[in-house]
Amino acid sequence: MKPDYIYLDHAAATPLDERVLEAMHPFFSELFFNPSSPYAPAIAVRRAYEDAKARIAQTIGAKGDELVMTAGATESINLMFGSVSGHVVTTTVEHQAVLEAAKRHDHTLVAVDEKGRVAPDAIFAAIRPDTVLVSVALANNELGTIQPLRKIAETCEAVRRLRIEAGNATPLVFHTDASQGVGQIDVNVARLGVDAMTINAGKVYGPKQVGLLWTSRSVRLTPQVVGGGQERGLRSGTENVAGTVGFARAMELADAHRKSESERLAKLRDALEKELITGHPDAVISGDHKHRLAGHLHISFPGIDAERVLFMLEREGVLVATGSACAANKGTRSHVLEAIGLAPEVADGSLRLTLGRLSDEVNSAAAAEAIIRAVRMEKDRMAR
Amino acid sequence: MKPDYIYLDHAAATPLDERVLEAMHPFFSELFFNPSSPYAPAIAVRRAYEDAKARIAQTIGAKGDELVMTAGATESINLMFGSVSGHVVTTTVEHQAVLEAAKRHDHTLVAVDEKGRVAPDAIFAAIRPDTVLVSVALANNELGTIQPLRKIAETCEAVRRLRIEAGNATPLVFHTDASQGVGQIDVNVARLGVDAMTINAGKVYGPKQVGLLWTSRSVRLTPQVVGGGQERGLRSGTENVAGTVGFARAMELADAHRKSESERLAKLRDALEKELITGHPDAVISGDHKHRLAGHLHISFPGIDAERVLFMLEREGVLVATGSACAANKGTRSHVLEAIGLAPEVADGSLRLTLGRLSDEVNSAAAAEAIIRAVRMEKDRMAR
Repeated sequence: MKPDYIYLDHAAATPLDERVLEAMHPFFSELFFNPSSPYAPAIAVRRAYEDAKARIAQTIGAKGDELVMTAGATESINLMFGSVSGHVVTTTVEHQAVLEAAKRHDHTLVAVDEKGRVAPDAIFAAIRPDTVLVSVALANNELGTIQPLRKIAETCEAVRRLRIEAGNATPLVFHTDASQGVGQIDVNVARLGVDAMTINAGKVYGPKQVGLLWTSRSVRLTPQVVGGGQERGLRSGTENVAGTVGFARAMELADAHRKSESERLAKLRDALEKELITGHPDAVISGDHKHRLAGHLHISFPGIDAERVLFMLEREGVLVATGSACAANKGTRSHVLEAIGLAPEVADGSLRLTLGRLSDEVNSAAAAEAIIRAVRMEKDRMAR
Repeated sequence: MKPDYIYLDHAAATPLDERVLEAMHPFFSELFFNPSSPYAPAIAVRRAYEDAKARIAQTIGAKGDELVMTAGATESINLMFGSVSGHVVTTTVEHQAVLEAAKRHDHTLVAVDEKGRVAPDAIFAAIRPDTVLVSVALANNELGTIQPLRKIAETCEAVRRLRIEAGNATPLVFHTDASQGVGQIDVNVARLGVDAMTINAGKVYGPKQVGLLWTSRSVRLTPQVVGGGQERGLRSGTENVAGTVGFARAMELADAHRKSESERLAKLRDALEKELITGHPDAVISGDHKHRLAGHLHISFPGIDAERVLFMLEREGVLVATGSACAANKGTRSHVLEAIGLAPEVADGSLRLTLGRLSDEVNSAAAAEAIIRAVRMEKDRMAR
């Protein structure tokens, strides 16, 4: 069934894949047993749960028993930050969950360049002898800018070597929130070089309210939620079997189609970008042209009011975002756009267009036309 | 579709009601939008979410904006305990989540009588000038014993009056975990007299990994999970729309059929109890005969090994528990049975039989026969 709207907000939420829902279904009804119960049907549910964790782990190059299943990326991030005490380093363009979790610690926010990219050297400079955690998102949710995680990992490794030489036993954990990257870029933890990684099923056509925190065996977590001792004592509460099974299917699908899907999206995105710039040559593209998520297009039409354009587009059935969905309701300017130094009149005219599985050539072309028309009407209105 | 087993473990997990799943379905697929997004279809999702919260609230006599939606009872309990600092009072028969959360505070565990009931006077005696929280489950998950919450609420109110007279400004919150009571007894917060209440969708034929903490307007919560500021800043993370809509439907169904269903279950349970005692006159019934959940039957066959009986029953398709499902995998004796002073040889021969929507006269009678037979075989084996 094709929807009657054109959805260009895949970074805010993705529809649940039908195949994922199908995989979850048995665990809603006939396989509803508590995985801690001792009889065979419950043990089968326990096995399905552990198997789903192992399958998720495989898609990131890890083991199932290195995962803590959570209710989403925000909880995962809070679990990671709540497990350390000491100074933490992160960037000015992180998701609100990381920024708020960082505020509970002595912290340094590292600035980014005008493309939203953080320099590994700047991370190095911010690390102090008492720094215990570095957290950098794999890709920025507003701009789509991909961070140089591999280089930052090497920086962290260099710090660890220097600490050994200096007799400083403080451990340093490098965590990434990879929620925005899964399905578009490789999230193999060894290749990324991270010690801890957060991902979210709801951003990858999986069920909402399901996420995980992966940590390498060297990282010690402190449970935030205590009780029955599930998840190796790190996150109590009856396991989310249906959600985890769905997450596994979603990760497998994302992994299987990652290369072809990101090529397809980049092509659609580039065509959309070209159309919009042709229609409005004064448009400003933000983010890193070279290091950018395939489905992301952050475009500003200087001087116009993006919110008005958003509502004009909505009437034509084109759904877009002006900024991060999390901040959308608050009427404040995006902290990411401030961080990259976008002039206020440019920032206020920004649309975030994020393509995904609901995007195709036909609806992307129709969206381009609608956006060009809406921006033109808004420019005309303001010129009067 | 009737299952090919007889399920007598409704206290561990309940199957998702088909009507609940039906209510959730649209929010998996077509209404997948992020409720924080600004366009009309997302605003409709936001409305559905707020409406679901209001409907849940109505079933407990509260307002939607007094609820914090969580990933289950364990998280709700941790949120409540994490929001206070000071001495806490609870009982020796609480769920592991309460006991573990209490351990993070200076705490007193109040003893219960041989039926598992706590005396309001004993709670009063345990409250100190610096006590900030009293937490008592509405009904015990192993015995089904219903606690005198109304009387304990009056006790807390008396303490508050004494504190005012003494010029002690320490607030006192009375919290209950009502997860085991919903659908069988009235959980109207005003009638219970509580200031805070935890409930769990997964125990009431709703979706798993969904729960809530209700608090009266006088209670101040401290967010455990920070980020985008959802749930009035008290629990960040994208809202669980499908889960909350399902929870609402589950609560409405539970509320609508509470009286007839608890009468039906009590009748089935009493018949089962009678059959089993007739078959094995040495059987010991635990819990409070008068104040007991309609679906609960805790029965011990002194001297036998309940685990062996459990596996014999499993082979006949009868699924029962030996103790709390949460502790089942740990091979330790139930803390609840220790707390009521059950002799070890009686405790070790205990089955927890919990009836629910999957129970009827035919399968209850068949279960009675199977249990009588299995216990007899086990007695015979031991007599050899």
